[in-house]
Amino acid sequence: MKQIEGGITAVSGVRAAGVHAGIKAAKAKDVALIVTDTPATAAGVFTKNSVTAAPVIVCREHLKEGRAQAVIINSGNANACTGEVGMANARRMAAATAEQLGIEAALVCVSSTGVIGQQLPMDNIENGIRAAAGALSTEGGSDAAEAIMTTDTHPKSVAVEIELGGAPVRIGGIAKGSGMIAPNMATMLSYLTTDAKINAETLQTALNRVVDDTYNLLTVDTDRSTNDTVLILATGHADNAEITTSDSEDYEAFCEGLLCVCTELVKMLARDGEGATKLVEVVVKRARDREDAEKAARAVAESPLVKTAVFANDANWGRIMMAIGKSGAAFNPYQVDVYLGDYQLVKDGMDAGYDEDKATALFAQDPVRITIDLAAGDTEITMWTCDYSYDYIRINADYRT
Amino acid sequence: MKQIEGGITAVSGVRAAGVHAGIKAAKAKDVALIVTDTPATAAGVFTKNSVTAAPVIVCREHLKEGRAQAVIINSGNANACTGEVGMANARRMAAATAEQLGIEAALVCVSSTGVIGQQLPMDNIENGIRAAAGALSTEGGSDAAEAIMTTDTHPKSVAVEIELGGAPVRIGGIAKGSGMIAPNMATMLSYLTTDAKINAETLQTALNRVVDDTYNLLTVDTDRSTNDTVLILATGHADNAEITTSDSEDYEAFCEGLLCVCTELVKMLARDGEGATKLVEVVVKRARDREDAEKAARAVAESPLVKTAVFANDANWGRIMMAIGKSGAAFNPYQVDVYLGDYQLVKDGMDAGYDEDKATALFAQDPVRITIDLAAGDTEITMWTCDYSYDYIRINADYRT
Repeated sequence: MKQIEGGITAVSGVRAAGVHAGIKAAKAKDVALIVTDTPATAAGVFTKNSVTAAPVIVCREHLKEGRAQAVIINSGNANACTGEVGMANARRMAAATAEQLGIEAALVCVSSTGVIGQQLPMDNIENGIRAAAGALSTEGGSDAAEAIMTTDTHPKSVAVEIELGGAPVRIGGIAKGSGMIAPNMATMLSYLTTDAKINAETLQTALNRVVDDTYNLLTVDTDRSTNDTVLILATGHADNAEITTSDSEDYEAFCEGLLCVCTELVKMLARDGEGATKLVEVVVKRARDREDAEKAARAVAESPLVKTAVFANDANWGRIMMAIGKSGAAFNPYQVDVYLGDYQLVKDGMDAGYDEDKATALFAQDPVRITIDLAAGDTEITMWTCDYSYDYIRINADYRT
Repeated sequence: MKQIEGGITAVSGVRAAGVHAGIKAAKAKDVALIVTDTPATAAGVFTKNSVTAAPVIVCREHLKEGRAQAVIINSGNANACTGEVGMANARRMAAATAEQLGIEAALVCVSSTGVIGQQLPMDNIENGIRAAAGALSTEGGSDAAEAIMTTDTHPKSVAVEIELGGAPVRIGGIAKGSGMIAPNMATMLSYLTTDAKINAETLQTALNRVVDDTYNLLTVDTDRSTNDTVLILATGHADNAEITTSDSEDYEAFCEGLLCVCTELVKMLARDGEGATKLVEVVVKRARDREDAEKAARAVAESPLVKTAVFANDANWGRIMMAIGKSGAAFNPYQVDVYLGDYQLVKDGMDAGYDEDKATALFAQDPVRITIDLAAGDTEITMWTCDYSYDYIRINADYRT
């Protein structure tokens, strides 16, 4: 596997564009369009928030057959809590895109991200769709990555090339954060493309598996958006033998490539979390089972007290012990070890006799890796988050004003 | 029921003291002692964190018979994650207090709050116990309230007088926060006294019931301490007929008094949360059941995005919809109403057409009351929290340095 340039448009059969349509106040790109030259095999994973935005409902409907040829996305307005009008507007986005491309509306996926509770400015949206359709290009991946940004400080894009039975296969992806899971400016959206030949069912299985180990283990502020969406479109342009079952070597190799793309995007999202000064990797080792591992890792990764200590480069391991203690995971408090990178802070639940200055220096590095050994089983998990800084408050207190 | 002066020492048979023993760096009071003139009926509720501090383990043991005559508390050091030495030190605190008072060590409850992972400075502790025993007074409640403080900005104390069958009965309480549930400087501790005649079993039942509706519905930062403790001592000095069952009018009246004291303390704790600029009351109405009501209220009260919006006086109701949506509570998104005080922001899940300036002005008041009507049942609950300000980050990022 090798990393390559070009993001989603590194993949054969994919064109993209990102344009400014005046939905955001600032003169920034705010409409993105991704198109495959023929209908692609497609799969998606969506927010579990019971307050679901209109575009998510429409996108789910349109994906039912596992096929899609275009994704239209706007930033600046989430089209959530917008009732019947919002539903009609989401359908209109799909229809207007289909008209521009000369395809069926049912082949168009729709996403929105931005403020909740306001109706979309449909004139701007429709102008944006026309402009984006005119700007489609095989170099347009980075423009699309830019157009889906909200409070992100930079676009996020990655691509890899793998081999399936000797045939080169590419997988690309873009994403935006940056408080994952913050409903206003910070819905998590990610769009993936591949030229692999793979049927819809197997593609959905692969996506579910990889999302569980990447996007679902990313946490910035515990909040979960009304609009979160991960989509993948497979053009089938590559020369691999079609993957039709999850019980095959090619499937495993494909998942490995997809995992690589998604892990890189997730790290970019965490590092660019609202107000973040560094990426934090929380590794839980020797947990009883996957559920316990995730509980313990999540409790640490979501603890405001741990996150402020990381911001301050403070090896305040008592906060880590507190967090795993409240998590509900099974362990013996007198057998827990905690490491910062490879440096041991806690042995058997107590101060390991570490050097405070050395710990502070390790905390000042980016990424910060906190490893917790629960000595309760053999399951390991990694979660990604960021620290909590003054800027998190500033960004979220000032956002609408 | 009337509110009276004097806090825990407003209750007949109770003396208290708070002294400076040099455990905290600053020259502040850091050892508190509460004593009843004869063994009192006693009950307690403790942290559910599986990493439990030594004093909590000792305190639980000593309360087994439902009797206690003294509570010794230090601030500045939590005696948590301190192993065998920590256990021996917690027992020594009880023994040293018992020696000073000429009572059995098993009648002494022990609490600690402060940094995790460091051994107690036992010379300072023992000097402090001697000094506190010498300073005991029926006016000492406010000194004790001061000595248990950590990042609290002021002591918290309240007392009421009720009547049980014509006999006046008093209930007093003190508490410290101020990130509830923050393990280092911000364990939640509360000590209650009453002169009511009540047996141990009924006292524990009453305490459990009231804690569920007060302390357990308080949240500052989602973290839960290794040391959280609520204790109540009943001297039996009042002339009421002994309460021996939870199926009686006197029991109900006693619970009402206890609820009043604990609710006042909880509001003080929330308003003095780390970095808080205001008290926030989250009311969930017409939930399907208690569990759903608490889920929805907790999701709102613990959402960093809601809390930063409250700090900014920003009527960002989309964040409230997001929070209840992720909570798992049952409701129809198109039937939800949201109010700020009595002013409606959301009707049927959408913008109610409110005036932005009026909403901003309402948010600038203290307390801020957010009411969410789920239209899914008939259960109502109130949770207490505070906003998230720059100072929350400052306090928790700078604490150990």
